[in-house]
Amino acid sequence: MQQRPVLRLKAGEERRLRAGHLWIFSNEVDTGQTPLRGFAPGEQVTVEDARGKSLGCAYVNPSSVICARLVSRDAQVGLDRSTLVHRLQIALAMRERLFPEPCYRLVHGEADGLPGLVVDRFGDVCVVQPNTAGMEQVLDPIGEALERVVAPQHILVRADSPVREREGLEQRVTWLGEPGPASLTVQEAGLTFEVPAEAGQKTGWYYDQRANRRRLAAYAADARVLDAFAYSGAFAIAAAAAGAREAVAVESSPEACDRIAANAERNGVDDRVTVIEGEVNDYLAAARQEGERYDVAVVDPPAFIKRRRDRRSGERGYRKVNEAALRLLGRDGVLLSCSCSAHLPEERLSGILLAAARHLDRSLRTLERGGPAPDHPTHPAIPETAYLKALFVRSVIASSLP
Amino acid sequence: MQQRPVLRLKAGEERRLRAGHLWIFSNEVDTGQTPLRGFAPGEQVTVEDARGKSLGCAYVNPSSVICARLVSRDAQVGLDRSTLVHRLQIALAMRERLFPEPCYRLVHGEADGLPGLVVDRFGDVCVVQPNTAGMEQVLDPIGEALERVVAPQHILVRADSPVREREGLEQRVTWLGEPGPASLTVQEAGLTFEVPAEAGQKTGWYYDQRANRRRLAAYAADARVLDAFAYSGAFAIAAAAAGAREAVAVESSPEACDRIAANAERNGVDDRVTVIEGEVNDYLAAARQEGERYDVAVVDPPAFIKRRRDRRSGERGYRKVNEAALRLLGRDGVLLSCSCSAHLPEERLSGILLAAARHLDRSLRTLERGGPAPDHPTHPAIPETAYLKALFVRSVIASSLP
Repeated sequence: MQQRPVLRLKAGEERRLRAGHLWIFSNEVDTGQTPLRGFAPGEQVTVEDARGKSLGCAYVNPSSVICARLVSRDAQVGLDRSTLVHRLQIALAMRERLFPEPCYRLVHGEADGLPGLVVDRFGDVCVVQPNTAGMEQVLDPIGEALERVVAPQHILVRADSPVREREGLEQRVTWLGEPGPASLTVQEAGLTFEVPAEAGQKTGWYYDQRANRRRLAAYAADARVLDAFAYSGAFAIAAAAAGAREAVAVESSPEACDRIAANAERNGVDDRVTVIEGEVNDYLAAARQEGERYDVAVVDPPAFIKRRRDRRSGERGYRKVNEAALRLLGRDGVLLSCSCSAHLPEERLSGILLAAARHLDRSLRTLERGGPAPDHPTHPAIPETAYLKALFVRSVIASSLP
Repeated sequence: MQQRPVLRLKAGEERRLRAGHLWIFSNEVDTGQTPLRGFAPGEQVTVEDARGKSLGCAYVNPSSVICARLVSRDAQVGLDRSTLVHRLQIALAMRERLFPEPCYRLVHGEADGLPGLVVDRFGDVCVVQPNTAGMEQVLDPIGEALERVVAPQHILVRADSPVREREGLEQRVTWLGEPGPASLTVQEAGLTFEVPAEAGQKTGWYYDQRANRRRLAAYAADARVLDAFAYSGAFAIAAAAAGAREAVAVESSPEACDRIAANAERNGVDDRVTVIEGEVNDYLAAARQEGERYDVAVVDPPAFIKRRRDRRSGERGYRKVNEAALRLLGRDGVLLSCSCSAHLPEERLSGILLAAARHLDRSLRTLERGGPAPDHPTHPAIPETAYLKALFVRSVIASSLP
């Protein structure tokens, strides 16, 4: 067995790891005994507590605040091809059990025992996001393990996530091996979508919203549905397919608007999907002026709170857009309000919606608390892995209703 | 308009109500000006803040810790037949939109603007739970309003909830008008169940678990499924109908066991549903001895924490039964762990499961956070209305998995 260098923690700093977490922060390391600058980015180490007891194997990045992430609780087991194969097999088993089509998030980082790695599967194409120096180091074994476990025809490396900057990593998009198709095909709940491979947001598709798209269908029959921040139009098209009278998708990117129209046509609902190119806040203001009315509104913005210090301005952003959407609902409407900001707890989002509703003199009730689909598991010891909130609330105009 | 007596709050004590809550605690009342003993149980009052500004209409119970519940934010609008009709219409509109069959919780207390009232609908039969003196007072108008909005053939009054004791109310079960059938019929997701009308738990059926039964189906194919605390066998039968190899229902009541068998037969899955009469903890211990193995386990016990002071013992109860269930899962299993204890936050239940899994050297991941179905809305300003937790977790035996 390979002898790895040791990363020694300060006394007591092993507690979070023992409770199940995988992250080590730089201020927890005994840098007197094991200076961080002595490690190369992505290097694998044996983590020891202050008394020299092994806590497992981690990879290090001396230039990141999260300076190490545990990859195994057994110091004998490092992050190599064999471990990757094993972890992929465990990850695949649950997805194959849950999803009839080979379209899902196959690896969801920490929660699948592969910190810093995301793999989304689009049938024969796997899209890999190596978000840390540790995963960048083992990109070739990742490709080999995917070959072995999934045997995709193509592997696209989306090494262009903004989080890579914190790891000191470059931005690039490349194919591992032979280049694949220009667009990816998603099959979900009887619908088919195409999204651009190399230029899509994140990996190209938001699999995390799958369960919420399905829930939305129950509210869509005969409804006029607004899909704000529509991206590929998945909510709008799912609503139209579930019987919405009209689904209006608002999206600022012209390319994305073309894609929504194409996806609507592909699924035979283009007669009931209206695409509006523009900024969501501008549209909401204009729609108010024109007296537009919706039965259901979906507000699924990009993360307004990317860092903790953006909390105040981010919360104002959520308040503004949700209040404007609530305003467009009729006497009895449903709002699906989503946030993918890890720094915004669900209770806080709920409080923002309640405040907006009270300001508009509407009575608000929570109908369902949605969350990510089960191909986005969360690690119960790592609250950071739970990021997506999706509240289905009912807004009623009835002044006496308490 | 009828002139109601005034209930005056102390200075500052209107804040919770202004934030949307409906409850007034006895220590918040200015009993110097408006002594609680001056009110009859269930009497309707106008609530005023310390400066005499109206906050709406409430009903009072001087002998309850929650001494008043707001029923309207408009002091002109009391709890009468007309208000009841209006609230029922609002409640019914959402249920009819969401559920194809007339089987659902029609009124979910505070969240439907009718504090202290529960109405479950079983097709032509409505089961009413008046849980407070205020609702007891308006039982006849409730019956009339139900006639008007729902027109059920029968109305059963289940005035036998333990919470009535805190209100100083008697226990009884009666029909409003002509007596109805001995059993109630539930139609849900293509299945049919019969439950006893007058002797069932609560209203006879746990509609709140509907969405979780549906979620469970995705995990059931070819699986051996344990349904602990099975009651009417709804989880076991839903799992069998979704393709479970075998569903084992464990239930301590002999009458309930007969009912599970009858419901299994009614749905054509009796060949794959096994009913075991016994205490769940005893069964789990015996099954461990005998080396039984399950792929999926459902643990849905009665509330172990009924009052805040039961928290410690209740948490030990959850730990014990969930750990014993986890033990019966194979290398890769799924546990659906539920708690209807309002005093147990979801994070705490998650922590209990994590501790149990670590004790058994299993790696745990949360796949889905289930909650009550949308016929059990929650009031965002009343955390007490969110009581049901349902965590779908995956348990994997893989020693190195972090």
